[in-house]
Amino acid sequence: MHVLPVRIGWGHCDPAGIVYFPRFFELFHEAMETWFADALGIPYRDVILGRRIGFPTVHTEADFQSPTQFGEHVAVELRVGRVGRSSIELLYRVVGRIAGRVHGSGGDTDVRATGRTVVALMDLDPASPGYRRGMPIPDDLRARIDAFAGA
Amino acid sequence: MHVLPVRIGWGHCDPAGIVYFPRFFELFHEAMETWFADALGIPYRDVILGRRIGFPTVHTEADFQSPTQFGEHVAVELRVGRVGRSSIELLYRVVGRIAGRVHGSGGDTDVRATGRTVVALMDLDPASPGYRRGMPIPDDLRARIDAFAGA
Amino acid sequence: MHVLPVRIGWGHCDPAGIVYFPRFFELFHEAMETWFADALGIPYRDVILGRRIGFPTVHTEADFQSPTQFGEHVAVELRVGRVGRSSIELLYRVVGRIAGRVHGSGGDTDVRATGRTVVALMDLDPASPGYRRGMPIPDDLRARIDAFAGA
Amino acid sequence: MHVLPVRIGWGHCDPAGIVYFPRFFELFHEAMETWFADALGIPYRDVILGRRIGFPTVHTEADFQSPTQFGEHVAVELRVGRVGRSSIELLYRVVGRIAGRVHGSGGDTDVRATGRTVVALMDLDPASPGYRRGMPIPDDLRARIDAFAGA
Repeated sequence: MHVLPVRIGWGHCDPAGIVYFPRFFELFHEAMETWFADALGIPYRDVILGRRIGFPTVHTEADFQSPTQFGEHVAVELRVGRVGRSSIELLYRVVGRIAGRVHGSGGDTDVRATGRTVVALMDLDPASPGYRRGMPIPDDLRARIDAFAGA
Repeated sequence: MHVLPVRIGWGHCDPAGIVYFPRFFELFHEAMETWFADALGIPYRDVILGRRIGFPTVHTEADFQSPTQFGEHVAVELRVGRVGRSSIELLYRVVGRIAGRVHGSGGDTDVRATGRTVVALMDLDPASPGYRRGMPIPDDLRARIDAFAGA
Repeated sequence: MHVLPVRIGWGHCDPAGIVYFPRFFELFHEAMETWFADALGIPYRDVILGRRIGFPTVHTEADFQSPTQFGEHVAVELRVGRVGRSSIELLYRVVGRIAGRVHGSGGDTDVRATGRTVVALMDLDPASPGYRRGMPIPDDLRARIDAFAGA
Repeated sequence: MHVLPVRIGWGHCDPAGIVYFPRFFELFHEAMETWFADALGIPYRDVILGRRIGFPTVHTEADFQSPTQFGEHVAVELRVGRVGRSSIELLYRVVGRIAGRVHGSGGDTDVRATGRTVVALMDLDPASPGYRRGMPIPDDLRARIDAFAGA
């Protein structure tokens, strides 16, 4: 599991004083970006700009269990779901951080939202015959994802 | 059907030059807000601040069929799905606006994204015993929604 | 003067129920984008992607006179200030739209914010020797800007 | 000086692959929010929701020296400028983080943007006679700010 800690700021929140729900999808994306660097060992930037592989979202969804307030500290958890030939399913969970306890360690986990995203791999190399089309997950990247998923 | 026309701006787009996917949820919410005013005849602001009814999103999802580029003009369509005792399902579709044609009028509709959101009704009146709890759809609001859905 | 009408939505606003101030800079940028298309007769997209001219902001500022609430309708006015060899100064004003009155037509204009931005022109053509450097305003674009400013 | 480290993500950036300039004002605000908690010892949330003091921005400005790219790590520095009776001037600087070096420690600081914001203090207590009006900086808060500024 990869975890992105987030301090909920003024700009995340709406006039109800809670996170405006589209912001959760921004948090999911941030979790994915940091997952590349921190868990797979290859910065998202390098994959996009260096290897010219894009990860357009083809499906995403979220369920909101309880509101998250301005000023709270939460954790965005990322797990890997189904890994296809040219797509990756990412599973998210936003949990409150309970003081003095590793989050998610007990039966009383304070879940705020769960999410699921499917990203496809897209060839971003203008010089490639497959430019802007889907592409299979490269072997080395798949190996890193499998290692993460099995950890 | 309620339609929100949107010009895709610089700020909607990411380094790939296409709409950053969380922005679609912002567009969905904008479509809902204008639906209240334009289709139901009661501004969202009045429902929230005047009648103190909130509409927290409990579930949302989207599928992305094809990318939407910076500078494009699209339409966000809103239809009503299932209307429960205290929740409303809203169905969205983002379509490209084909020049010289009413969008959605032909078999060649240029669909970019589809979405579905379920909002619950929440009592925002601090003086109410049900403050911050779910509440049934008021009769007059239900009548307006039914009239829209049947139109 | 170019005017962008804006309905202030849920997503523009913060927990105080008023526009989160960075959003004003987004509105300024939207006003500039629509100014290209509507007032200069050349869509911003065409300038950026077609002619490969960028307009990075080198300076911006804003003063906030009175808060703008969720649900309000405002107008973002754009005027042209000083036009240099390779930069353009844009002057903004956000005004409330007073019912039954052309905004800004009386002495009682309801000004919410004023802003000022200086954009430089940048060569975005990878094939150009001046790639990613400043560039003078092309004559045809200057003529359009002068015509707008003199109108 | 208070420092907020920021990883520039996909969502901060525009189709030019650099930070969309309104996002810098979001970063400035985040720096201010964390300054309250980390440097003044009182979380921003507690000031707003507990003590019911708001900090509306009355003026802000920024100069952009060089672009900040997707994937970069930067630091947002906050210093205190002039502290008035009922307003605080905050000075910002966004600098690139040079590997193996404490940022800002040498003559070759990689400055991307500088900013300046003036916030006023506003009484947010509905029960107060001064509700929604300006208010002087409370003594204990001024003492904390002075201690920070003199540090």
